[in-house]
Amino acid sequence: MCPPGCFHSICENATRRGLLKAGFTLGLGAAAAAALPVGKAALAAPTSFSETVDLSHALFEGFPTFSGEKWFTVENIVNFAKDKVNLNRWTLVEHSGTHMDAPIHFSADGMSADMIPISDLIVPAAVINISARAAENADTALTPDDIKAWEARNGRLPDGCCVIMNSGWHKLVGDAKFAGRDAEGKNHTPGFHIETVQMLIAERNVKGIGVDTLSLDTGLNSGGAFPVHYEWLGSGRWGVEAVANLDAIPESGAQLFLGIPKVKGATGGPTRVIALL
Amino acid sequence: MCPPGCFHSICENATRRGLLKAGFTLGLGAAAAAALPVGKAALAAPTSFSETVDLSHALFEGFPTFSGEKWFTVENIVNFAKDKVNLNRWTLVEHSGTHMDAPIHFSADGMSADMIPISDLIVPAAVINISARAAENADTALTPDDIKAWEARNGRLPDGCCVIMNSGWHKLVGDAKFAGRDAEGKNHTPGFHIETVQMLIAERNVKGIGVDTLSLDTGLNSGGAFPVHYEWLGSGRWGVEAVANLDAIPESGAQLFLGIPKVKGATGGPTRVIALL
Ligand SMILES: [Zn+2]
Ligand SMILES: [Zn+2]
Repeated sequence: MCPPGCFHSICENATRRGLLKAGFTLGLGAAAAAALPVGKAALAAPTSFSETVDLSHALFEGFPTFSGEKWFTVENIVNFAKDKVNLNRWTLVEHSGTHMDAPIHFSADGMSADMIPISDLIVPAAVINISARAAENADTALTPDDIKAWEARNGRLPDGCCVIMNSGWHKLVGDAKFAGRDAEGKNHTPGFHIETVQMLIAERNVKGIGVDTLSLDTGLNSGGAFPVHYEWLGSGRWGVEAVANLDAIPESGAQLFLGIPKVKGATGGPTRVIALL
Repeated sequence: MCPPGCFHSICENATRRGLLKAGFTLGLGAAAAAALPVGKAALAAPTSFSETVDLSHALFEGFPTFSGEKWFTVENIVNFAKDKVNLNRWTLVEHSGTHMDAPIHFSADGMSADMIPISDLIVPAAVINISARAAENADTALTPDDIKAWEARNGRLPDGCCVIMNSGWHKLVGDAKFAGRDAEGKNHTPGFHIETVQMLIAERNVKGIGVDTLSLDTGLNSGGAFPVHYEWLGSGRWGVEAVANLDAIPESGAQLFLGIPKVKGATGGPTRVIALL
């Protein structure tokens, strides 16, 4: 199964083990899913939509990172005024702008971006709004109680969904609060609580988690410990970070489309996230 | 309207003029569409689907280019064995792998990738199969007669669609025929005929054109003249190149989802193309 150009040597094991770990794949055995990198995927139920909402930030040189390092640069290599063609070259760390985290990002042998079945790229969205609390305390986390409060209003989390934190941070991209770096180099941004992802893995059927900040973990947990990254991505599931425009979709009922470039061996990539309503 | 980080100075004009040029945008005035880079778009009619098909090639170092130049490289900058995290940096010319061409690619002031309204990223697909002819003659072009033959079977091209050439080239990525470079450095690959795009612009309502080769133009027309690129992209419309897996979708009835990263000023970008059936 290891395709030409794959640059991690454990590709074949990763496919098999990654899919077994994430064995909740809807309606597909692991063997069928493993055959899918180019292929078809049937949905559990027909999906219908009549409106689309862009949940992606525009990516530009200087898009915030936790450390302040520049992770994305653009070089104009062919120019219309001179050459009658425009063409650019990007230099890009995979986790720039609105982007996905593939399981391999925080695991030895998880799926890389190109191995994520396309049936995992169109999923129901459950949006959990903790923005009032986060405005008071940038270090707050999305807890199991937040999940339960959402379920009390909307019913059980839909099978195969993505649970997304709306902390209000998506409105702060131009603001120093977005990365939230203090004088000691610590970051203060909301994220998932480790107990929340443990609960989602053990007791629900969830494909991905998303945040409108730069990290699935709280900023304070993103300086080396990364408990949520290890637990969640290590379980074979994916994440999506720096999601935009979350106030424009309902807390229940939207579908997410995750347009991630299919790059062999990628640990993630800049992703066009669009909601279907 | 010019966002921070925009590196071409004509951004504001481009938005306005680009949208006026491509004035066929369904159900949206230019002013409404201009407000959409982050926003909502209503579809002309509800869309329903129950199956997804990946139309994207996996991108890897050495993915073919016409010249043989390497347009995509990956550097592993953080490694799990040593650091307990995996992370890569890409160096990428925007037109690598399965990718979109934004109007600005072949125009002075067309829309860049981030300005394409999201209502243009989910469109009906009309697949025109010229693979039998292309197998005989790699220099063949998709003609107005091919459009008319498709319409005789399927009815008029649907409003706002993408017309895609299936030349059979999508099956040749591992083969020297894919780039089709001869001993004199000329490329032999099928593409659109200039009269076809002139007809589509004047007489139909089409948002994009797509090919399963490396160029919207034939290979022989891609060495400098690029008549189809200038005519089509210059009209404010977009293209998609190196589409994969086209035998897996019907010639009529599929919807295309074009997941292009939202990069400010981009002339294109690696795109996750998924069909909804
Ligand atoms: Zn990430
Ligand atoms: Zn291109």
